[in-house]
Amino acid sequence: MRFGVLGTGTVGRALATKLVDVGHDVCMGSRRAGNDKAVAWAAAAGERASQGTFADAAAFGDVLFNCTSGAASLDALTAAGEEHLAGKVLVDVANPLDFSHGMPPTLSPCNTDSLGEAIQRAFPATRVVKALNTINADVMVDPSSLPGDHVVFVCGDDDGAKRDATSVLGELGWPPGRVVDLGDISAARGTEMYLMLWLRVMRSLGTPHFNVALAR
Amino acid sequence: MRFGVLGTGTVGRALATKLVDVGHDVCMGSRRAGNDKAVAWAAAAGERASQGTFADAAAFGDVLFNCTSGAASLDALTAAGEEHLAGKVLVDVANPLDFSHGMPPTLSPCNTDSLGEAIQRAFPATRVVKALNTINADVMVDPSSLPGDHVVFVCGDDDGAKRDATSVLGELGWPPGRVVDLGDISAARGTEMYLMLWLRVMRSLGTPHFNVALAR
Repeated sequence: MRFGVLGTGTVGRALATKLVDVGHDVCMGSRRAGNDKAVAWAAAAGERASQGTFADAAAFGDVLFNCTSGAASLDALTAAGEEHLAGKVLVDVANPLDFSHGMPPTLSPCNTDSLGEAIQRAFPATRVVKALNTINADVMVDPSSLPGDHVVFVCGDDDGAKRDATSVLGELGWPPGRVVDLGDISAARGTEMYLMLWLRVMRSLGTPHFNVALAR
Repeated sequence: MRFGVLGTGTVGRALATKLVDVGHDVCMGSRRAGNDKAVAWAAAAGERASQGTFADAAAFGDVLFNCTSGAASLDALTAAGEEHLAGKVLVDVANPLDFSHGMPPTLSPCNTDSLGEAIQRAFPATRVVKALNTINADVMVDPSSLPGDHVVFVCGDDDGAKRDATSVLGELGWPPGRVVDLGDISAARGTEMYLMLWLRVMRSLGTPHFNVALAR
């Protein structure tokens, strides 16, 4: 399968590398083709890896991952082009963290809206699935590095898109029983607002290498 | 030990009952002495149980629990009287859920502030510990009803108060290893904002009888 990964940061590189490792073709997109990190990633990742603009990556992929920073996501997706996003599953991994007022970051939007919803509104023909934004990049692509049945949350308005996303999550190492469907895309408020707790747990544990399991 | 439990709802009654059951004296406070639910609770809970105004309960307790609804908490604590709160550990269990715009609720305050912080600011001589607000009332007082090492978060500015709260949590069934200290009271933003995820998980699982464990 062909994937477009938008974003060249830690999350984008981790997901793109894993997708290549399990046998897929991946194009990493950034603001400009030839981005240093994307070029280095593509060179290291082998012949199934390529890089280009956001539009190149979006046009290439059957399934897309938004791994841009939350504050830049709507601009990045606009640059990717509505025509390249239409009809496709877009897994939105971004968190709308606002560092402009210093540390700790706040969320924007928050409480009465979410980035996931904003993306779905801006691109109504795109099948947005919010997922993986509650998990450190290392754990995203190697869930068995942590013990127990810790979980990944998904939400979105399109049930077929959530099934497709769940299948891709399976290839990343998440069995279906550990994928928790929270319903429509408005649940992105919940998974994004959880970041404020995640950041404090990270500080308390002294590591981002953790995740939550559900005792029930 | 003597406890004051402010609030007569499900959370207040569950905590007050458990505290009596483990051998403490508990006064349940509400807006007016003689509140029907408080009277019924005190009659059922036995001779260690009493009821009265918020001020009565606050004056009675060495350790206080704020189990009022989040929107009413500052008024309830004001009615309890600063002089009855000063120097005491106040475990703030409330969540500032705002139902005035319909369902789902939003949080107020949120993102750049929290109820826990607002209470600590309003009553600077009180030793506020935010705790238990991430957990259903049944699970709060019977953590072994769920499998695994699921956790309770605490935060607050006073380390001694957090030690006292951790000791009380131990009597409720939470061993120290499952009490996660998130630091100062500003971490209440994290545990309160988590409610938006909690509400969606509850809807997905079809039960409020769950909690999170940390895989690490």
